[in-house]
Amino acid sequence: MSGPNVFYAQSGGVTAVINASACGVIEAARSTSKIGKVFVGKNGILGALTEELIDTSKESKRDIAMLRHTPSGAFGSCRFKLKPPENEPREYERLLAVFKAHRIGHFFYNGGGDSQDTANKVAAFSRGAGYPVQCIGIPKTVDNDLPFTDTCPGFGSVAKYVAIATEEAGLDVASMAATSTKVFVLEVMGRHAGWIAAASALAKQGIASPPHLILFPEIIFDRERFTEEVAKVVKRYGYCVVVASEGAQYADGRFVAESSRKDAFGHAQLGGVAPKLVDMIQQDLGLKCHWAVSDYLQRAARHIASEVDVQQAYAVGEAAVRLAVAGKSGLMVTIERKNGNRYRWGIGSVALSKVANVERKMPRRFISRSGFGVTPAGLDYLRPLIQGEDYPPYHNGLPQYVRLKNQLVKKRLPKFRVE
Amino acid sequence: MSGPNVFYAQSGGVTAVINASACGVIEAARSTSKIGKVFVGKNGILGALTEELIDTSKESKRDIAMLRHTPSGAFGSCRFKLKPPENEPREYERLLAVFKAHRIGHFFYNGGGDSQDTANKVAAFSRGAGYPVQCIGIPKTVDNDLPFTDTCPGFGSVAKYVAIATEEAGLDVASMAATSTKVFVLEVMGRHAGWIAAASALAKQGIASPPHLILFPEIIFDRERFTEEVAKVVKRYGYCVVVASEGAQYADGRFVAESSRKDAFGHAQLGGVAPKLVDMIQQDLGLKCHWAVSDYLQRAARHIASEVDVQQAYAVGEAAVRLAVAGKSGLMVTIERKNGNRYRWGIGSVALSKVANVERKMPRRFISRSGFGVTPAGLDYLRPLIQGEDYPPYHNGLPQYVRLKNQLVKKRLPKFRVE
Repeated sequence: MSGPNVFYAQSGGVTAVINASACGVIEAARSTSKIGKVFVGKNGILGALTEELIDTSKESKRDIAMLRHTPSGAFGSCRFKLKPPENEPREYERLLAVFKAHRIGHFFYNGGGDSQDTANKVAAFSRGAGYPVQCIGIPKTVDNDLPFTDTCPGFGSVAKYVAIATEEAGLDVASMAATSTKVFVLEVMGRHAGWIAAASALAKQGIASPPHLILFPEIIFDRERFTEEVAKVVKRYGYCVVVASEGAQYADGRFVAESSRKDAFGHAQLGGVAPKLVDMIQQDLGLKCHWAVSDYLQRAARHIASEVDVQQAYAVGEAAVRLAVAGKSGLMVTIERKNGNRYRWGIGSVALSKVANVERKMPRRFISRSGFGVTPAGLDYLRPLIQGEDYPPYHNGLPQYVRLKNQLVKKRLPKFRVE
Repeated sequence: MSGPNVFYAQSGGVTAVINASACGVIEAARSTSKIGKVFVGKNGILGALTEELIDTSKESKRDIAMLRHTPSGAFGSCRFKLKPPENEPREYERLLAVFKAHRIGHFFYNGGGDSQDTANKVAAFSRGAGYPVQCIGIPKTVDNDLPFTDTCPGFGSVAKYVAIATEEAGLDVASMAATSTKVFVLEVMGRHAGWIAAASALAKQGIASPPHLILFPEIIFDRERFTEEVAKVVKRYGYCVVVASEGAQYADGRFVAESSRKDAFGHAQLGGVAPKLVDMIQQDLGLKCHWAVSDYLQRAARHIASEVDVQQAYAVGEAAVRLAVAGKSGLMVTIERKNGNRYRWGIGSVALSKVANVERKMPRRFISRSGFGVTPAGLDYLRPLIQGEDYPPYHNGLPQYVRLKNQLVKKRLPKFRVE
């Protein structure tokens, strides 16, 4: 009889490489007799509560290998947080019941800060309940805001996408600026941390080159200062490229995207920091503007994923299996940057209890004094993360992404109502 | 002494492959003794009026070769239309004076419908003035709306970008829809013709697969019908992906993006059809939505250019030189689709007088009966145009795009004031 089964779940916003982590988990588990099957929650942790467990042993070796280059969450993800077990143990009890019924001894939770917190609580709860489950957190977030890991899988590929988009759109605007658009605003993700916006600075090839201004959530937004800077840049270089975090905010904490403007019916106007900024520039400076909001395109852009990011995403999945087999629990896998001039990285781990509820913002020393740019130290941190192009295979002009069978395990328990 | 010099200019909105056409012109001109130098207008036709002629003979062979994979307009483009010579011959006379002063015998104009019209007028005017210039139009437009050519260089790469963006974002939404976003709206270019939006349908892998609804400028937009369809799709498949042309319009010709809504200060609210549609869906259906506006990113996305598009863009530039050497004038180069099951194409030409002021919209037979999809005939037309991936070289994680020296020829004429 083989070892205990694994329950793996994807959590929160998906990325271009979270399936590469799943691929790492499944391929590593298949290669050892110490692990039974890998079950995956349909739509993340919800699948554990509803006992909808996807049996990955039904998938071919080829299809599992294709996960490595397939973006999004191949098993479904969810935005759902378990209620705290201290007050409402019902969901935790259900989780354990499902784990017991399917001989699950390892829980791998692939997500951001909230998920690491949940994994930590499951570890404690299961110990207390006398059915200790080995809980390992697998980091994932395009926001790059998890502590203790040098970077978060998913971030490097968004960073690469944003840097390339800035480079390409910058050339476009430069070539038209004499008679047309003078200002281009690109809105990128990052509600609380400016890592993604910062990555656009990798496209900069000198002082005159885009991006000219970057807006970070970490730096208070001041309309007057901003439009003055735009005017200066346009005067100096003929055009201006702005990259704005969706989380850019005023001194009082209001998001720029959530302005107080109302439509004719009195409804609050729909968000989007880019159109708001363009409105300001047109009102204050009367310059012709264009804007783009890349939204999901940026985090789904597997077609231009960073090779380093893909390798790291795979490695953290693989490492979760290794830690579990070694009898570890209560850890999150981390990526460690080695010392030295050439970029080298390895895998480490940190106690889940330390990770929970700590958010890593951009350090001020990575943001230039003006507040609109990235320092050399920031660029040195970012540059290695976008190295290499891990192209997916193509068929008929389009990337070939896998659709799994996602066959469910037979249920053994009564229904459970998720509230 | 070598043959007459060429004046080449880029016109209007730039694309991922217009520089590939420039590359075709310059490399072909360099390979024949029948052509002198290739001068390029700085910022398009404006450069001819201001006598700012870029001397491409100063660029290295390597840099010219790199134009093939560099997006945007490497010499600057412009949105500027010459005034009709019948009423105001001043600009045409200046053009001829500059051409004479620099021994220019060939004029290659690389642009859309307006540019072809201008090229035609220059041909006639120069004949009438006793200094006949051989005028050849080189097609370019992401809108794909030029007549007589099977497709327009620039379109295939945008089509590929939009199809991939739809495929990737579609997977993202599908994996999150159980607990998060139910509707995703992607706004794409196409003010008057729905070709670009139509290309998203290439990502469709079956009836349940995105895109579920496409909005074309050719089909009248009806809010009630639209939100009803969205509701139906969400009910059936759990989520809905909409791809909308920026040119989607109501029965009375108003653009959906130009709604009558005002901000708190009475200013007309800034465009963007995607946020407008999302507003409608949230008001009528109360569903969680996300939206993206790819704007310049789509037409600058050389990193994922279509190989067929790049080859055709190069070929139409090369062909302009061939036609000029053969003594032709008053023609636009065209791309011809050969008969047969396998896609094959060749180069042809058409009289500029026929091209001028004709706009090619999507034929109704390419749009499905519901008005929200693309027919098999439409897909058969589109599919060959996105084949092959023509990746640029990378350095340090980013595409290596060329910046030319763009050295100007010494001026020989008095200043001219552009009005």
